Amino acid sequence: MLIRSGEWAGHTSGLATRHVQGNVVVLPAAYAHDFLLYCQRNPRPCPLLAVSEAGSPVLPGLGDNLDIRTDVPLYRVWRHGQLVEEVRDVRSLWREDLVTFVLGCSFSFEHALLDAGVPLRHVAQSRNVAMFRTSIATEPAGPFAGPMVVTMRPFKPADAIRAVQITSRFPGVHGAPVHIGKPELIGIHDVTRPDYGDPVEMLDDELPVFWACGVTPQAAVMEARPSFCITHAPGSMLITDLLNYQLATL
Amino acid sequence: MLIRSGEWAGHTSGLATRHVQGNVVVLPAAYAHDFLLYCQRNPRPCPLLAVSEAGSPVLPGLGDNLDIRTDVPLYRVWRHGQLVEEVRDVRSLWREDLVTFVLGCSFSFEHALLDAGVPLRHVAQSRNVAMFRTSIATEPAGPFAGPMVVTMRPFKPADAIRAVQITSRFPGVHGAPVHIGKPELIGIHDVTRPDYGDPVEMLDDELPVFWACGVTPQAAVMEARPSFCITHAPGSMLITDLLNYQLATL
Repeated sequence: MLIRSGEWAGHTSGLATRHVQGNVVVLPAAYAHDFLLYCQRNPRPCPLLAVSEAGSPVLPGLGDNLDIRTDVPLYRVWRHGQLVEEVRDVRSLWREDLVTFVLGCSFSFEHALLDAGVPLRHVAQSRNVAMFRTSIATEPAGPFAGPMVVTMRPFKPADAIRAVQITSRFPGVHGAPVHIGKPELIGIHDVTRPDYGDPVEMLDDELPVFWACGVTPQAAVMEARPSFCITHAPGSMLITDLLNYQLATL
Repeated sequence: MLIRSGEWAGHTSGLATRHVQGNVVVLPAAYAHDFLLYCQRNPRPCPLLAVSEAGSPVLPGLGDNLDIRTDVPLYRVWRHGQLVEEVRDVRSLWREDLVTFVLGCSFSFEHALLDAGVPLRHVAQSRNVAMFRTSIATEPAGPFAGPMVVTMRPFKPADAIRAVQITSRFPGVHGAPVHIGKPELIGIHDVTRPDYGDPVEMLDDELPVFWACGVTPQAAVMEARPSFCITHAPGSMLITDLLNYQLATL
């Protein structure tokens, strides 16, 4: 309600930590099939939690009383790939041909890792996670294509093994890592210099572990330059009624 | 029946590949509690599949018609830690105070890895797996103690992740890896020179992945120098009626 009323327009990291948060992409129906296909072909970076009917602002699978036009803290509005404004409410921009896509986010599996006592350095240091563009190409669909973006978290070997186990239970929120160790094999030449987010220290007794990242579809959408698009502003996610552990497959 | 009759006294690798094979340790009852406790305290290297009643040669959990005195291809007989003979049948050595321990073996999870298309170089090259003594101490129990011995298999990063997932399903046969990458952190200074088994090539794009190994309890028993002990001869395991996938927890 605070978000719906416009009182909270900030980041959602650390808010309602038991609840699933989602990345939001709203596209005209003309792009919807190709974007849906892109997500279907690239489930690790694009784990779809819900897709609306065209023109409908509700997402019953994510909450009984959810209106995508008001319930994201801060929106970005894009025209032809250009950011045109940031707003707290998109009711005045709504169109009958808009389709909403909500994609899972790593907050859910980070919650499960922390619950299991697996430390996350960027969380302990209150930083954004380190993100990298890789040499792994996504499977294109229509105008949507581009490299996979990954998050990197450093772990001691025993914790890296636990992290594979725990995140494997959450395929709806990126699931298992896509890579472990050997950053150079996926085109990352310096793990201390991320392309997005904040740098994170890596100790000699740690391995870098890489997960597919929701920035992948965001970058693919920007590159495709759709005539119109609404997204959440970075870090200001949709908080849903789902609980993180409801997404666990085991 | 071939094994029981004494006709087959060779290795069991590659025989009855769908079936669980076990490491065998037979000890006088005076040692049984401490050895059981050692296994309980060190489940990764010592995954107990079955423990007999004292004096009883049967193991109903592992097969309806199983006699531990005849059904191992080749036995080793030890007195005070010294190997005294290798025989195909221990009926003449049987005593009313002997307790049989059967421990899971990595053949079971290797079968699951190969079924899932994860290649195993030592299998492809018909070699024994590479084994290393580590700097990881096991939890002692009575006279049983010593370093953890591990097997090492090299994998490309994506296969290393799959291997964690697949072997996590098999806690009864060593389960998940105990270590990944960074061999120096567990006291292994040259992964190309194993302490037991055969060397295996490791490529630049591969990570070493380490599992606890059944040689750990064997070495602990030898070091404890029990007055009497029977084991299987290396590679000549007990073939059980259990199927590997019956051990999968998921």
